[in-house]
Amino acid sequence: MAKSSAGRSALSRIMQILAAFDVDAVFLTVSQLSARSGLALATTHRLVAEMEQFGLLERQLDKTYRLGVRLWEIACRTPGALGLREIAKPYLQEVQARVRQHTQLGILEGYEVLFLERLSARDAVVNVTLVGGRLPLHASSSGLVLLAHSDATFQDEVLAGDLFRYTDQTVQTPESLRSLLQQIRRDGYACGRGYIHPEARGIAVPIRGVNDLVVAAVSVVVPNDDAPVTGLVRLLQAAAQGIGKDLHAAYAPSNDPAATPGGRYRTLVSSSLDSMEYLPSAPRPQTRR
Amino acid sequence: MAKSSAGRSALSRIMQILAAFDVDAVFLTVSQLSARSGLALATTHRLVAEMEQFGLLERQLDKTYRLGVRLWEIACRTPGALGLREIAKPYLQEVQARVRQHTQLGILEGYEVLFLERLSARDAVVNVTLVGGRLPLHASSSGLVLLAHSDATFQDEVLAGDLFRYTDQTVQTPESLRSLLQQIRRDGYACGRGYIHPEARGIAVPIRGVNDLVVAAVSVVVPNDDAPVTGLVRLLQAAAQGIGKDLHAAYAPSNDPAATPGGRYRTLVSSSLDSMEYLPSAPRPQTRR
Repeated sequence: MAKSSAGRSALSRIMQILAAFDVDAVFLTVSQLSARSGLALATTHRLVAEMEQFGLLERQLDKTYRLGVRLWEIACRTPGALGLREIAKPYLQEVQARVRQHTQLGILEGYEVLFLERLSARDAVVNVTLVGGRLPLHASSSGLVLLAHSDATFQDEVLAGDLFRYTDQTVQTPESLRSLLQQIRRDGYACGRGYIHPEARGIAVPIRGVNDLVVAAVSVVVPNDDAPVTGLVRLLQAAAQGIGKDLHAAYAPSNDPAATPGGRYRTLVSSSLDSMEYLPSAPRPQTRR
Repeated sequence: MAKSSAGRSALSRIMQILAAFDVDAVFLTVSQLSARSGLALATTHRLVAEMEQFGLLERQLDKTYRLGVRLWEIACRTPGALGLREIAKPYLQEVQARVRQHTQLGILEGYEVLFLERLSARDAVVNVTLVGGRLPLHASSSGLVLLAHSDATFQDEVLAGDLFRYTDQTVQTPESLRSLLQQIRRDGYACGRGYIHPEARGIAVPIRGVNDLVVAAVSVVVPNDDAPVTGLVRLLQAAAQGIGKDLHAAYAPSNDPAATPGGRYRTLVSSSLDSMEYLPSAPRPQTRR
């Protein structure tokens, strides 16, 4: 790929522009994009204009830019994100209908948990989880479940890193984190009481995919009171088992009797049975551009 | 931006690779990516390797590639897609809890309707709507609502284009489409009986955003029987009104008494009230890369 004078590739500069946007910075001027990306103003102007042409950025009436709907549309083809969320969705809805607080789905990304979905009730407890947002592994119940089932080398790296202190309940030392991870593996769930906010309690269980590996965590965030967790854990474990079974079915070879109908769509889409059976043969008129 | 010998920019080639993925083609080999993108095999190899480094592509054990979770994460910063879906989500869930078929949210993108969300019951009627998928405007009830509220020039363009015939019920002629659009504006909803599949009926109403402009459509897909639509239309109109009100509140200036709490988060996030109030001041530890 062509390199700029600074030795950075075109793609690297595009990624710097894209990554300048954040959950709390969704409308940015060209100057802000330049400042946040570290790219020269002239370079930023040129890149922004071209990215707008391809729909990656959208110019607003007030001359700020936002990320484009076209980017979101392309990103919907991700089996690892939207596909997993589609498969999990009916189970998350079932949990949420019972718990009526927050129900969420998270995966391990880098040194954090990345949330693929969150369902919330209007009067639910305070919760910092965002769809597409990340939290540190040691503080989030989903993160703790994912970390507890990671390999030892990765765990050591996390234990050696910074353990950000949200509250005085957040796990503070590598020793206490290590014994917490042991407890989570033994109990089959994580329960974080006030680790991120004093009023909130997170409860998470692992989801096992193909080869029985832990691929995600399903969790609820509920008030940090003394209500027993047993019922919630059972509800989450039933959901995790259902999601795991559907993941197997979505990735099983088409000739496997357990395979979900839907052919090439089944790792990305979870719709009604009739829809899944119809989709592979459904006509697809040409998109007009 | 640097141009290749063929005169195409680096970004244009990256977009060709990204757009090679589709709802029914989510795992692709380098050869398939080359064939679908029209790029030379050597160029494709080079680009794919660099895109993998940035997390835009992920290599699978079987050597195919899929779009990366990192791409999805960045795409979650889109107020026009994920943000609108977040604001609409509680209302869509309410409709779906009542109708228990398919409930969906669509926006106008190019000459099609792009669906931002679909909630489905397992035993619901056959439906081709996919999250991140598109349908032609003349055939989908959501598309018809969006087209009915578009400007005259755009309508003329669509009327002059191809009207793909899914079934013998799909609107066939510009004249019948024009009178259908009139009827939709008069009635306040669109009802497509078997336009896409003989067994399915779509019912959609417009969502009005700031300045009272139609920004999206909310719809249900139900069996194509003789059940009256009045109740469904009222349910959808109540949802559309709620979403419109919340859109106003999310985009109102922060000092407006009607503004949603949540500061910079409110065009992207819809969580519990306590969470929205807390988010702007919540600590955000540095992401470790």
